[in-house]
Amino acid sequence: MNIQEPPAYVSTTTPPDAEALYATLKDSLAAFVASRADRQPRIVGIHSGGTWVAERLHRDLGLPGQPGALDISFYRDDFNRIGLHGQVKPTEIDFEVDGADVLLIDDVLYSGRTLRGALNVLFDFGRPARVDLAVLVDRQTPNADARELPIAARWSGARLSLPRASEFVLSQDDGRFSFAIANTPRTS
Amino acid sequence: MNIQEPPAYVSTTTPPDAEALYATLKDSLAAFVASRADRQPRIVGIHSGGTWVAERLHRDLGLPGQPGALDISFYRDDFNRIGLHGQVKPTEIDFEVDGADVLLIDDVLYSGRTLRGALNVLFDFGRPARVDLAVLVDRQTPNADARELPIAARWSGARLSLPRASEFVLSQDDGRFSFAIANTPRTS
Repeated sequence: MNIQEPPAYVSTTTPPDAEALYATLKDSLAAFVASRADRQPRIVGIHSGGTWVAERLHRDLGLPGQPGALDISFYRDDFNRIGLHGQVKPTEIDFEVDGADVLLIDDVLYSGRTLRGALNVLFDFGRPARVDLAVLVDRQTPNADARELPIAARWSGARLSLPRASEFVLSQDDGRFSFAIANTPRTS
Repeated sequence: MNIQEPPAYVSTTTPPDAEALYATLKDSLAAFVASRADRQPRIVGIHSGGTWVAERLHRDLGLPGQPGALDISFYRDDFNRIGLHGQVKPTEIDFEVDGADVLLIDDVLYSGRTLRGALNVLFDFGRPARVDLAVLVDRQTPNADARELPIAARWSGARLSLPRASEFVLSQDDGRFSFAIANTPRTS
């Protein structure tokens, strides 16, 4: 079996080094892409943080075509609770999803609800042969399983546990990533 | 962190002891249900093997109400490829899904496509507070990651790796489970 067990979650209350997490994630994906060169995996990011990471991975890994982008604003199951904030950007998929190997990218995996929405948006375009999920941070909370749906990432830059009242916020400045910790603005 | 890392997958070419796997799964879920007594988790099985397991767990764990049942025959993304075989049974959910903690039960987790379909059927009834997945067998294949979607089980009776050309088939006789190994009849 070449399926490796993931490391344990590490508790933190300070922002992780986003550039270090990106480097770790990039190395994992470079090895995977090299091993699957015959399949030419296509990379797709989730707005907004995930698209930043996907675009940079696309360049750094020298992948063909254009990176895809998914906007799941209208698909999250709690849309009517959290409303629409921030910019709405279009979903952009310029490849044939049917039969494709898709690398789905997000900045943070937490409840899993965003990812369920992203899978549904992606499947609106076709039936991928497979979808593998990669995130900068696979997040949990201390003393409780914060994943609300049975969604898991295949790769992450780090597995971190952060108290429920806080969240990781990714920003991008001049091509470099950084994480901040903010108070959680939403209830789910 | 009380989130335990799962054990490694074990390669096999012979059927596992389904009764032993059921006992392991039941013990895990009994501990979980006891720890979440205030939430009264509701159990829902996926036709057909998952509903057998869900019904037995419902009895053995003394859960309230009736076990739910999901039929995803018309929801699997490859429905038009594999066609409709076997009996179609109705989806039966007699509780308020909105806000509920759901224990979703299947016999075998493999590609993850059935589970994506099951989540969509479940969400047609409402927005659960959380969905945790439990399976008798979390299945992989040797030398390749057989999961085609980023779906993961929180609990399993065992994590087993079986060659791609074979599959585990659950049967129930006089209230007892057994697994057989069959040639895989489908392509995905």
